[in-house]
Amino acid sequence: MSGNTFGQLFRVTTFGESHGGAVGCVVDGCPVGLEISAENIQKDLDRRRPGQSKITTLRKEEDKIEILSGVFEGKTTGTPIMMMVKNKDARPEDYEKLKDIFRPSHADFTFQKKYGIRDWRGGGRASARETLGRVAAGAIAKKFLKEKLGIEFLAYVEQVGDIKTEVDCNKVTSEQIESNIVRCPDEKIVEKMIELIEKVRKEGDSVGGVIRGVIKSVPTGLGEPVFDKLSADLGKAMLSIPAVKGFEIGSGFEGAKMRGSQHNDLFYTGKQGKIRTKTNFSGGIQGGISNGENIQFRVAFKPVSTIRKEQITVDSKGQNVKLEATGRHDPCVLPRAVPIVEAMAAITIMDHYLRNKAQNL
Amino acid sequence: MSGNTFGQLFRVTTFGESHGGAVGCVVDGCPVGLEISAENIQKDLDRRRPGQSKITTLRKEEDKIEILSGVFEGKTTGTPIMMMVKNKDARPEDYEKLKDIFRPSHADFTFQKKYGIRDWRGGGRASARETLGRVAAGAIAKKFLKEKLGIEFLAYVEQVGDIKTEVDCNKVTSEQIESNIVRCPDEKIVEKMIELIEKVRKEGDSVGGVIRGVIKSVPTGLGEPVFDKLSADLGKAMLSIPAVKGFEIGSGFEGAKMRGSQHNDLFYTGKQGKIRTKTNFSGGIQGGISNGENIQFRVAFKPVSTIRKEQITVDSKGQNVKLEATGRHDPCVLPRAVPIVEAMAAITIMDHYLRNKAQNL
Amino acid sequence: MSGNTFGQLFRVTTFGESHGGAVGCVVDGCPVGLEISAENIQKDLDRRRPGQSKITTLRKEEDKIEILSGVFEGKTTGTPIMMMVKNKDARPEDYEKLKDIFRPSHADFTFQKKYGIRDWRGGGRASARETLGRVAAGAIAKKFLKEKLGIEFLAYVEQVGDIKTEVDCNKVTSEQIESNIVRCPDEKIVEKMIELIEKVRKEGDSVGGVIRGVIKSVPTGLGEPVFDKLSADLGKAMLSIPAVKGFEIGSGFEGAKMRGSQHNDLFYTGKQGKIRTKTNFSGGIQGGISNGENIQFRVAFKPVSTIRKEQITVDSKGQNVKLEATGRHDPCVLPRAVPIVEAMAAITIMDHYLRNKAQNL
Amino acid sequence: MSGNTFGQLFRVTTFGESHGGAVGCVVDGCPVGLEISAENIQKDLDRRRPGQSKITTLRKEEDKIEILSGVFEGKTTGTPIMMMVKNKDARPEDYEKLKDIFRPSHADFTFQKKYGIRDWRGGGRASARETLGRVAAGAIAKKFLKEKLGIEFLAYVEQVGDIKTEVDCNKVTSEQIESNIVRCPDEKIVEKMIELIEKVRKEGDSVGGVIRGVIKSVPTGLGEPVFDKLSADLGKAMLSIPAVKGFEIGSGFEGAKMRGSQHNDLFYTGKQGKIRTKTNFSGGIQGGISNGENIQFRVAFKPVSTIRKEQITVDSKGQNVKLEATGRHDPCVLPRAVPIVEAMAAITIMDHYLRNKAQNL
Repeated sequence: MSGNTFGQLFRVTTFGESHGGAVGCVVDGCPVGLEISAENIQKDLDRRRPGQSKITTLRKEEDKIEILSGVFEGKTTGTPIMMMVKNKDARPEDYEKLKDIFRPSHADFTFQKKYGIRDWRGGGRASARETLGRVAAGAIAKKFLKEKLGIEFLAYVEQVGDIKTEVDCNKVTSEQIESNIVRCPDEKIVEKMIELIEKVRKEGDSVGGVIRGVIKSVPTGLGEPVFDKLSADLGKAMLSIPAVKGFEIGSGFEGAKMRGSQHNDLFYTGKQGKIRTKTNFSGGIQGGISNGENIQFRVAFKPVSTIRKEQITVDSKGQNVKLEATGRHDPCVLPRAVPIVEAMAAITIMDHYLRNKAQNL
Repeated sequence: MSGNTFGQLFRVTTFGESHGGAVGCVVDGCPVGLEISAENIQKDLDRRRPGQSKITTLRKEEDKIEILSGVFEGKTTGTPIMMMVKNKDARPEDYEKLKDIFRPSHADFTFQKKYGIRDWRGGGRASARETLGRVAAGAIAKKFLKEKLGIEFLAYVEQVGDIKTEVDCNKVTSEQIESNIVRCPDEKIVEKMIELIEKVRKEGDSVGGVIRGVIKSVPTGLGEPVFDKLSADLGKAMLSIPAVKGFEIGSGFEGAKMRGSQHNDLFYTGKQGKIRTKTNFSGGIQGGISNGENIQFRVAFKPVSTIRKEQITVDSKGQNVKLEATGRHDPCVLPRAVPIVEAMAAITIMDHYLRNKAQNL
Repeated sequence: MSGNTFGQLFRVTTFGESHGGAVGCVVDGCPVGLEISAENIQKDLDRRRPGQSKITTLRKEEDKIEILSGVFEGKTTGTPIMMMVKNKDARPEDYEKLKDIFRPSHADFTFQKKYGIRDWRGGGRASARETLGRVAAGAIAKKFLKEKLGIEFLAYVEQVGDIKTEVDCNKVTSEQIESNIVRCPDEKIVEKMIELIEKVRKEGDSVGGVIRGVIKSVPTGLGEPVFDKLSADLGKAMLSIPAVKGFEIGSGFEGAKMRGSQHNDLFYTGKQGKIRTKTNFSGGIQGGISNGENIQFRVAFKPVSTIRKEQITVDSKGQNVKLEATGRHDPCVLPRAVPIVEAMAAITIMDHYLRNKAQNL
Repeated sequence: MSGNTFGQLFRVTTFGESHGGAVGCVVDGCPVGLEISAENIQKDLDRRRPGQSKITTLRKEEDKIEILSGVFEGKTTGTPIMMMVKNKDARPEDYEKLKDIFRPSHADFTFQKKYGIRDWRGGGRASARETLGRVAAGAIAKKFLKEKLGIEFLAYVEQVGDIKTEVDCNKVTSEQIESNIVRCPDEKIVEKMIELIEKVRKEGDSVGGVIRGVIKSVPTGLGEPVFDKLSADLGKAMLSIPAVKGFEIGSGFEGAKMRGSQHNDLFYTGKQGKIRTKTNFSGGIQGGISNGENIQFRVAFKPVSTIRKEQITVDSKGQNVKLEATGRHDPCVLPRAVPIVEAMAAITIMDHYLRNKAQNL
């Protein structure tokens, strides 16, 4: 109940602090017989890894994953899968001077108030390094859902600051997304985004943005009707990612301005007698349950709180202090957040796939 | 796991279909000794009730709540509180002709696909009537949190279609909200909103909007750092309400356009040595944990799917059919959704209050 | 987390106090399409009902069950099934004089200490009347498991006081059990048991006993290997029944005296190539997972605490008081506990059936 | 839901196979600020360790625990505590010849049937090596409960085969228990027990027994009234330990033979006005809730399934095979199970302590 576990049947528990012994996860409830290797996991971790390009933090972290249980002769056995990365690039002395300071819009103050104690080295448990365990677990979910059901997860950077692409999310490919360091599939604006991020870095500042997610080939029937609507659980999954401030499914906030006669997705009978909708303002989910159309959602990220610019804040005694961060941080977290969004989407769909299967014989 | 329960320690399970025997809830985990009466609950139910004003549906439902367990001599005893309303205004024959039709953007199609069977009378379990149980449970949470901790929940209609108020949410009072049938605290635009809703009704159409929520006097420390961030659980709570398509905490999607140097909420020491933030782009939650500032969030509602305008859809055999709804429905669901938003917010805060208390001695 | 819910996927929440408004349950997660009627439920409730024979309490409670949600046109729809019995035979004045007294070995003292408040009418929530909701939920589970999988649940009174039957539990039939008011399938000793119970009643005393349960035609593979072993969850299910003090699976405490070479159940290949065991000291469960043999268990019930004999106890101020119960109570609870044992067994198996199905594709 | 997690608020998840990469646990929900070190944990692990005396298995496993998260500067921080032991003494070739054989009364057959795949090296996940994670987690719970509440956990071997001590469990001390390799506090029979165990070992056989547990200084009010009775959760905890076949609380199966007038624990007012009971047939728990008396329970262990004696069993094709185990195994598991019983008792009490605190303000 301390909120370190996500999911009901595909249960992901993450553990670890930024500069503790290790970070990782335990995945419980994974179906049996899935072929899985450290390499499968590593691929997504490398997309999340710091230092992967000139627009991310320059910190180098190799982040080599080990699978320590739950896999035998290359296959899942139905027992808990523990995966972890030992922490290496630990330079706690970088953080020593921050131990009594509450950095603005970080979790320093709230952790201190909640627990009365905190691991102040690099954000401790509140560090985005925690998401490494999510990406590892998500890689398993993605592999299963791809192989067994053909479900595909795509996420990409749609907006950085006020630069936004208008590409049709249904047509975007994985190759387009991975073709550039921003992970934006619109080559016309990628350079502008890179320029903006580099400008922001030089100013010692940071910038936010929006990631769009599309999930293709989802079977109808996933999601529970009341509290655990698929949209509600996807929303929670995304809002649990560090720095996320907003979530939209389908039409989102734009839908609030519309009339029912515009917004209603009219049904028709398509190829092979499959019932489809003409529009998809519902974002692939109706009454909390997937309807077989692409699931479409958007996730708003604030600019990351760590900036080099001087800021005035307070210390644990309430005294004003000047803060000038010196670590190597991300001016824009979105390119590295793309695999995290995919992972949380995959974990959510996986869990609902198993839940649906349990009740509907 | 069928998603009819919300919360970990303050657990709300709702039951009931629109035209079944009864709708209601079981609240488990309520602290002991809270004075509670049917009247306390009824007050909020009346704000959710159909037929309460000219801009809601004209269906009359008295919705008298009964408390059937868990309360003894006017006080909660720590045992499950079962509350219910027997269904009365049941006119299933109104729906008989809809039993084989998939109404656009309703849950008819997805329920049928998921379960192979559904209660087609008035939406069955997918009916907004299910939220009656949430409002009843929320009334208990609100009363507890108000009396023991002084926490106040305010929600109001901020936007209907493209008419939007810019009032400062921190200054809005409950009286202002309840002073008019829209539940919008900005008297300058209320009339315009009413006009729009009436126009939409005449056209046989519906319109969406945005509800803003503010939670005042929340203690610091509520929320869990990783998956069960207070913002993530509030988001899930809101996204589980029928017709909701988007959720923002604090700066939301606007925050995505900002720089870190603008967005960071600088700390300072305020009255009585209390550490405060100068701005509140965080929306009262940092690192998933409440920081003592007002919690601010926004919830986007799509226009309700039931409209009188003729629509072309398909039946269960995939044949095209004309649909012209004749029931008495809401042109704009937002005024009645205000107490639902408050209820879900209160249930979420209550649950996290108990969770925080359990771990932090 | 207040312990009013049992099960992970087939979730049973009971509510209600002995003399409150109603007692009942919400069953969430029941598979779709099961035919169910109030009559199906009532049959088991009647076996649990007070006043059913001369050896139970003479209190008359009709206990007519209503199904108020989750069933449509006679079938389960996948939504929560709420069932309840309105309380009628409420004579709280009988209990008024007990409101400040801690009856020996009842829950009066511990409820008061835990909650500081309690519904003192007839034991309130601690009353065995709470088990009515369990029996109703169990009736659904039994019906599903019988129809879909051919699983059969048998429970019978094996021992009353020191009178014990040695019949082979594998050969006992439902008809034998229901052929007499003790629910003991051994006609040779039934009369002795009845005599003992009547003697005990005349003495104003009560007597304990043992119920044996047998579950037949359980598929292999139910149960989870570590904490949620099928034996552990069955044990918890039984130990949660009021007055239960012990639980054995298979060889139980006798097994503690044996050698491995005696106790090991040797495998052999039986009819149709099915792998069987020669003996069944394991009680049908190995490593926490069902092996296809009959599941065999025993449940020890203490003598019920309510007796007519005078006892010295204390009141809420710690003063000595004389207690002489006058209500109409059971001298031996076992005959009425048989359907409760069956119900808890069925709920447990049902839950594990769904859990197994979720993970093992 | 795969049953690898125990507890609601103090949540223990174990992971790992006998011969995989590592075994260990994640403890989530531990209160903040508890001083904890690897040494604290190691002490109990050493009591569980193979090879600790001449009557256990002679396998040497050092089992050095590492704490990899959740502890900072020697104190718990409220974040998940991951602890593990890397597997070293891996000789899977010992097991290679067993990979297609179903050992009698082991989990080989049921795992194969459930999952269709299994890690056959040394029992894999079904190995008692899994309990290492439980003991580590239990050490934390014991330390917390001792320091904050003075609660003491004692478990000891009461019976080996048919040799049984009659010492008064309330008077037994930890020193007496640890004074000999059997962990039986009755010096008069310890030698007989050792002789029996050595005899059994020489015969290539194994023998079962009973462990008694006593929990002292438990506050009143722990346990939930209905399904999560403290006795039910303790029972489940014990029945989840490998080889356990029975559980009794208080009078247990003996209580079934008694009259209510004998069994009822009469209240009286003791020292400092504390309400006590004259007898303790309830075993410290009434209505599922602790009453402040010593909690007393008994746990029956079958003889371990691995024996050196030749047995006839079947392989995965159903063919008869001769089995003669050659590994180094325990003739009697009870001395090493004592810390496991203590650990599971401590985890259960800890969880209920936090649960009680959450609801009862």
